[in-house]
Amino acid sequence: MGTGQEHTVKAFDQDIKQLRALISQMGGLAEQAIHDAMKALQRGDTALAEEVRKKDKQIDAIEGEVEKLVVRVIALRAPMADDLREVIAALKIAAVVERIGDYAKNVAKRVPLIHTAGEDRIEALSLLPAMAQMASDMVHDVLDAFASRNAEVAAEICVRDSALDDFYDSIFRTLVTFMVENPRTVSQVAHLLFVAKNIERIGDHATNVAEMVYFAATGRYLADEAATA
Amino acid sequence: MGTGQEHTVKAFDQDIKQLRALISQMGGLAEQAIHDAMKALQRGDTALAEEVRKKDKQIDAIEGEVEKLVVRVIALRAPMADDLREVIAALKIAAVVERIGDYAKNVAKRVPLIHTAGEDRIEALSLLPAMAQMASDMVHDVLDAFASRNAEVAAEICVRDSALDDFYDSIFRTLVTFMVENPRTVSQVAHLLFVAKNIERIGDHATNVAEMVYFAATGRYLADEAATA
Repeated sequence: MGTGQEHTVKAFDQDIKQLRALISQMGGLAEQAIHDAMKALQRGDTALAEEVRKKDKQIDAIEGEVEKLVVRVIALRAPMADDLREVIAALKIAAVVERIGDYAKNVAKRVPLIHTAGEDRIEALSLLPAMAQMASDMVHDVLDAFASRNAEVAAEICVRDSALDDFYDSIFRTLVTFMVENPRTVSQVAHLLFVAKNIERIGDHATNVAEMVYFAATGRYLADEAATA
Repeated sequence: MGTGQEHTVKAFDQDIKQLRALISQMGGLAEQAIHDAMKALQRGDTALAEEVRKKDKQIDAIEGEVEKLVVRVIALRAPMADDLREVIAALKIAAVVERIGDYAKNVAKRVPLIHTAGEDRIEALSLLPAMAQMASDMVHDVLDAFASRNAEVAAEICVRDSALDDFYDSIFRTLVTFMVENPRTVSQVAHLLFVAKNIERIGDHATNVAEMVYFAATGRYLADEAATA
């Protein structure tokens, strides 16, 4: 290998390292956003909810940085085969994390609509934080799996998503029952339905990333493995 | 310009043409999916709903083709600057259209949950097809704007999205009122809330594409223009 090429390889490794650092930073902000949005929801803290909405711009900005870096890496280093696929995967994963941030922002947006004056105590509210913690842990672990190219953890995320889906179905039924029994709260509880749905979608997105990580690490599709298991 | 370079340029133009054809094909399938999902919903036609779900795999497959083509174009033609941005934009737009297909599929999935045995007549149902038509037209027009690089049409899509959001808010209130007055239908109407939300999200995604098209055509961000207008 000539020195010129070696130089390019090292520069490429640096770029990949930077891409991963940016994605990890986005992931940290997304986890924090989920956590804060749920805290705001539980406490009816509209100031914290507003902060979550504002901070989402940081996540969007880092996604923009990832995109610019990806375009620069492709233009300058002309990566081939696996390297190119890794760069494209980073672009896609950044887009997914950005969407996870959007779901947290959407939960935050609904806080003032759920905590209206003269509200009834909405019991179903107590189930959502546990569900959100499950989803948030999935996001954390899948980004760890991405950083360490851990196919086993990635496969496990998909199993956890089934549990999250079951949790969602149970909360959906609980909320519907609550609405029937407390017609005065229908509007607020309808917003809670969307909160639960947002959390369920966060799990779906973590699973999408897990599938990409699994494929990158093994060259096999996780869905195919599951179908034949 | 040497003949070799000219050859590469022509080959690149062919690739871009193919990318656009694939995206246009995806767009046509997504529009059809929205249309069929709404028809299935109105008629309680679960067979048609099932067909929409199955056909979504075609959209996913074309997105996979776009991705492969993008990777190949970048690897073989090493496009620079504007050309590279165009290729990356195609990748992103394909991902958005794939999601629009997912929303239509999600509407289809809810058809059997909304049309259960012994159902009450849900009046609010009659508003949704008009809303879906608005969203579907936005998808159609924004993909036309992408193909013709028409910034003016792209800017107009964003205005139409505000009208769609207002439509959604109105339907949300109507459905909530309906639930309060008809507690027996709460579960079905909750699914209709998600249908309305899915349509509203389709409009958001058409708007995302419009913003990309506007930026590609003018080099300016539509959001900035709107803020200073």
